[in-house]
Amino acid sequence: MGDFFQKQKSYQPKLFNMAESTNMRLRLPLLCIILEVILIILFGALVEYNDDTHAKLWNANKSHSATRDDYENEFYYRYPSFQDVHVMIFVGFGFLMTFLQRYGFSSVGFNFLIAAFSLQWATLMQGFFHGMHHGKIHVGVTSMINADFCTGSVLISFGAVLGKTSPVQLLVMAIFEVTLFAVNEFILLSMLGANDAGGSMTIHTFGAYFGLMVTRVLYRPNLDKSKHRNSSVYHSDLFAMIGTIYLWMFWPSFNSAITNYGDPQHRTALNTYYSLAACTLATFAFSALVNPEGKLDMVHIQNAALAGGVAVGTAGEMMLTPFGSMIVGFLAGTISVLGYKYLTPVLESKLKIQDTCGIHNLHGMPGVLGAVVGAVTSALASPGVYGDGLQRVFADAETGKWNPQSRVANSLNIKTYLQSVSKQNMPVFFSGFILKLPIYGAPPDTHCFEDGLYWEVPGEEEGHELNEVATPNEMEKLNS
Amino acid sequence: MGDFFQKQKSYQPKLFNMAESTNMRLRLPLLCIILEVILIILFGALVEYNDDTHAKLWNANKSHSATRDDYENEFYYRYPSFQDVHVMIFVGFGFLMTFLQRYGFSSVGFNFLIAAFSLQWATLMQGFFHGMHHGKIHVGVTSMINADFCTGSVLISFGAVLGKTSPVQLLVMAIFEVTLFAVNEFILLSMLGANDAGGSMTIHTFGAYFGLMVTRVLYRPNLDKSKHRNSSVYHSDLFAMIGTIYLWMFWPSFNSAITNYGDPQHRTALNTYYSLAACTLATFAFSALVNPEGKLDMVHIQNAALAGGVAVGTAGEMMLTPFGSMIVGFLAGTISVLGYKYLTPVLESKLKIQDTCGIHNLHGMPGVLGAVVGAVTSALASPGVYGDGLQRVFADAETGKWNPQSRVANSLNIKTYLQSVSKQNMPVFFSGFILKLPIYGAPPDTHCFEDGLYWEVPGEEEGHELNEVATPNEMEKLNS
Amino acid sequence: MGDFFQKQKSYQPKLFNMAESTNMRLRLPLLCIILEVILIILFGALVEYNDDTHAKLWNANKSHSATRDDYENEFYYRYPSFQDVHVMIFVGFGFLMTFLQRYGFSSVGFNFLIAAFSLQWATLMQGFFHGMHHGKIHVGVTSMINADFCTGSVLISFGAVLGKTSPVQLLVMAIFEVTLFAVNEFILLSMLGANDAGGSMTIHTFGAYFGLMVTRVLYRPNLDKSKHRNSSVYHSDLFAMIGTIYLWMFWPSFNSAITNYGDPQHRTALNTYYSLAACTLATFAFSALVNPEGKLDMVHIQNAALAGGVAVGTAGEMMLTPFGSMIVGFLAGTISVLGYKYLTPVLESKLKIQDTCGIHNLHGMPGVLGAVVGAVTSALASPGVYGDGLQRVFADAETGKWNPQSRVANSLNIKTYLQSVSKQNMPVFFSGFILKLPIYGAPPDTHCFEDGLYWEVPGEEEGHELNEVATPNEMEKLNS
Repeated sequence: MGDFFQKQKSYQPKLFNMAESTNMRLRLPLLCIILEVILIILFGALVEYNDDTHAKLWNANKSHSATRDDYENEFYYRYPSFQDVHVMIFVGFGFLMTFLQRYGFSSVGFNFLIAAFSLQWATLMQGFFHGMHHGKIHVGVTSMINADFCTGSVLISFGAVLGKTSPVQLLVMAIFEVTLFAVNEFILLSMLGANDAGGSMTIHTFGAYFGLMVTRVLYRPNLDKSKHRNSSVYHSDLFAMIGTIYLWMFWPSFNSAITNYGDPQHRTALNTYYSLAACTLATFAFSALVNPEGKLDMVHIQNAALAGGVAVGTAGEMMLTPFGSMIVGFLAGTISVLGYKYLTPVLESKLKIQDTCGIHNLHGMPGVLGAVVGAVTSALASPGVYGDGLQRVFADAETGKWNPQSRVANSLNIKTYLQSVSKQNMPVFFSGFILKLPIYGAPPDTHCFEDGLYWEVPGEEEGHELNEVATPNEMEKLNS
Repeated sequence: MGDFFQKQKSYQPKLFNMAESTNMRLRLPLLCIILEVILIILFGALVEYNDDTHAKLWNANKSHSATRDDYENEFYYRYPSFQDVHVMIFVGFGFLMTFLQRYGFSSVGFNFLIAAFSLQWATLMQGFFHGMHHGKIHVGVTSMINADFCTGSVLISFGAVLGKTSPVQLLVMAIFEVTLFAVNEFILLSMLGANDAGGSMTIHTFGAYFGLMVTRVLYRPNLDKSKHRNSSVYHSDLFAMIGTIYLWMFWPSFNSAITNYGDPQHRTALNTYYSLAACTLATFAFSALVNPEGKLDMVHIQNAALAGGVAVGTAGEMMLTPFGSMIVGFLAGTISVLGYKYLTPVLESKLKIQDTCGIHNLHGMPGVLGAVVGAVTSALASPGVYGDGLQRVFADAETGKWNPQSRVANSLNIKTYLQSVSKQNMPVFFSGFILKLPIYGAPPDTHCFEDGLYWEVPGEEEGHELNEVATPNEMEKLNS
Repeated sequence: MGDFFQKQKSYQPKLFNMAESTNMRLRLPLLCIILEVILIILFGALVEYNDDTHAKLWNANKSHSATRDDYENEFYYRYPSFQDVHVMIFVGFGFLMTFLQRYGFSSVGFNFLIAAFSLQWATLMQGFFHGMHHGKIHVGVTSMINADFCTGSVLISFGAVLGKTSPVQLLVMAIFEVTLFAVNEFILLSMLGANDAGGSMTIHTFGAYFGLMVTRVLYRPNLDKSKHRNSSVYHSDLFAMIGTIYLWMFWPSFNSAITNYGDPQHRTALNTYYSLAACTLATFAFSALVNPEGKLDMVHIQNAALAGGVAVGTAGEMMLTPFGSMIVGFLAGTISVLGYKYLTPVLESKLKIQDTCGIHNLHGMPGVLGAVVGAVTSALASPGVYGDGLQRVFADAETGKWNPQSRVANSLNIKTYLQSVSKQNMPVFFSGFILKLPIYGAPPDTHCFEDGLYWEVPGEEEGHELNEVATPNEMEKLNS
């Protein structure tokens, strides 16, 4: 290893100027420390335990009611789901993006950094918009899940700009995106009264839309100078499959994590399970079909097989039935593979959208499909089908507002959604231009998709020659 | 990468004829789409939410009883266990089989495909045999666990034929195996009244038996032409350890996932935990002992250490005690290592059974041991030991049938089991011969254990030479 | 592969003498089998199901009370947390240590072996010290978590001696360490009445302290002969990140696993979540800051980002507030990175402490910080803040002993802790010297950090040349 680093150092003069411009020594520490100090001050001023996490409040509430007991703490309803979501955010997204041959450290590492920041910032932003309690933000396992959800949206956008941004740039992006996410979520859920437990609209469509806008603004005409690095190697594809499989397995927990207790949570997990299974068969089918030699493409398997989870994000808690879920999943897998094959190249060449991970195919289109499915399914909802459970799925039914008019209003989800989205064009573009400022140490076009700019990178096989397991030549060299 | 594929393509004429015969472009999409369409139609006609997932039924039932509340939904009893089982099926089995040097894509990918199909098909088959409700199959978290269990059986069989089959062939195998699994499970659990919560008999012995029969029928006399690929490399063994460790950790959840609520679920997890711990020590001991230089063999550690989970599959829910569990685990690890060392070579040379993953040692023999242990433990069961808990473990005790006779009947598990197994020889062999038809695009003997036939495969280190991290020679080449 | 092993064998004569001295063929099987037999006998004599796992007792207790029901079984409160802890022990610790280029088999494998042994031995030792019931040790999910905790301590120590010990030596170390762990835990929790649900003191500080003492006694002056192997390669760092991320994600479950039901469990998870998030930002900040080129160091990210979990181990269940947790996490990340950069080299050169994984920085210093934070937070506790929940956190409050005096006593945690630690100097040093005996087959200085001594190791890329994916040269060679 010592040897190896000496070798590496001898080439560094050639990279000198670039190293200057991408040096993170002051930028990254300064930004991280300032952000964390601000977070700590705001948490100190604004954040409080909620009724289920506060020692005094929980035990006081308990004595009010003879029947309430420890197992009624929301912890036992939601914590297992939270942990599954947490795995999706850190292992799922993190490893899904390790498919690039020399960008694994950054994929997992920057994913880790921006997620750790975003979940703190999201606690504040979501708390601010979703109802303060006497000027305080109350936290517990549900706020943790919501913060992780918001973080997921940022990581979706990260997928679009993967390999072309510095960690400082990503943190700045996260500041903007988390804020706009909370605004968008507030408009959709609180003002328009839409249902979106699994976040087809709030998380996936928003994250995709934001990321595509940003990558459009950051368009690099000379990105093909780094083309040779924008692809996988054998083992990097296996690491990425770790991410894929974890996302796939835990998506039922993702969609059901914040639905109401009891049947909605149970039903959502079931619907998502079947949607994903059907999606996987569609993915394999179309991946082989669109290849001239009938060979499967890892890009499709790693990504499109997940579209079924995105597409039942909104309708999963409704009486979609396994039958309906499978149809939705099958469609989602199909459009996702076709998107990777035929749409992504067009987006890049015509619309100048360089979408590294193809988030448009995994989160964008399936998210819109999910919104449509959600609108249709909620328009078909009725007390006849849901019985007394209607109000447990549709919050407005609980307040006595359920009637044909409100059903139509609900089915207008998409229209209102598009309106709300279009209002965000300006701030998103603004974020993009802020991110374009040449102060963040972004990589030059010749060194995108390369860990070496921001990480101390060891060699792949260099140390190898000194092992027991040596080829005869190496052995002779060592002996001579 | 572009470069690399060009290189690769220049060799493809040599593989042309083979590429023709193994081309999946029509076969795989056609089969996947037809199967999924059939599944969707059958789900539409037959599958309904059960009482705990249906909005109307769950909320109607609730109002009947003042004490029933959301926390009594089976979701909260079983969903964490389901997720652990789900991880075992997709990450556990998937990565366990990545030990082969150039078959990682297929191991994880085909595992993913056939599992996604099998869990849908299993829902139908198990629903059909385990009791229709007015002509409908009711689904919820318990049916999801059972479908995953059945899928596990298919994946066990996949281990025997790993590297020697096309994805189309595997799907066809899954169709047959899931069906026979449901029949076998029906005979054992419903007709013979056997206990088998963790599936020593229904899942492991059946899966192993089916897989060994199939690989026997598909015997390839010239398989040693692919011998150089039928082994691991350093990092592929580490990927496989991901699978092993996840299987090992979550086996307590596997065995306890569908036992009765309360003490049986708790006890099963505990027994499995100790059985696996003891099994691991036996595995390391015998792995070093059977090696002339005392070196440990990754094949043993990856597989035999899991045999302790298989062997307490039947008896885990009974009052086996930690002491009994450890004895069983220790025996299972021992016979499994000895099987890998001494039996597998004999099976191949004498019986023409080419068992890639050694499922006979991990699932076959430990499964039979588990059946024996289960028979003995249930024969020793009595109201004196179990008290009022007897009927919670032994269903027939609940209906007042518990008496010495029934205990003896129960202890005859093995005999009846073998009878039921022997009746399945014909359909299993029939399945095998169907799989032998030359229409599935199976790999030729010279190209087994090779991802390149069915996948777009990137190079391992090709892209490397263009990175920062370059040897002096490479750098000169680039500069000149 | 066959080819490859032939090559390898031709060099073995050179390693002959070494192979003799490190041969595990008799040592390892003998020790494993003897230990497991002793464990089985002791379990048979001493271990019984507890009230929640015993068929008779659970069902008998149920009938005593009309309100008690299955969902009150401790299984449903603790099993999901147990599984998360289990993942941390086997995947977290196991893969965290795979960062070494040629020690992945041993990292995961020996981690597996000593953890499987330790959890059995810990059940006995902890049961013995924490209260026998009529001469019997009662087991259930809580004892499983405690056994895993104790195992974690052994694995922390393993990190200090990683690469320099044989598996036999590690098992002997585990025998001593588990025993002393149980004594130390008894002194702290039972005699001094300290609170330490997440084990800042009992697990992390103890494990670090024990490991550093042992590695000091086993000091190797000529370890730099193996220096070239004591470093990572690209993919080994990615494997290690699997361990890191799993430890990070599940740490909230670790700290909350054995706290009281309800608000304490919920609050602990929340505090740990925020502490880790703040810690991660500090880690990235200081990792870039201490590097001359501003590059991030994988060693820091893999380890220091976890210090936030260690540092709230004691205070996490108290009313630390998210604000307080974030301050503690930020401090922990900072001192951990600075420790890796500036302290570890000094410890090796001046104090002759060769700490392979830097456990002093991850578990030692943050553990002490955690003890201080715990003392301060418990000193500030009062009925005004905790209400009726006071006795659910501080056990002595329950018995009516809560008063200013006891609060002061509690704040003396550190002093009493240091006293108890200092009393253990003798037995720990004694353990170290026992481990120094030349009978365990430890690796010679020239072959530390090398899997090949104890494992059958396949080549990395050797088999490669026979694949489809071949370079032109290789292809020609094959064809000629």
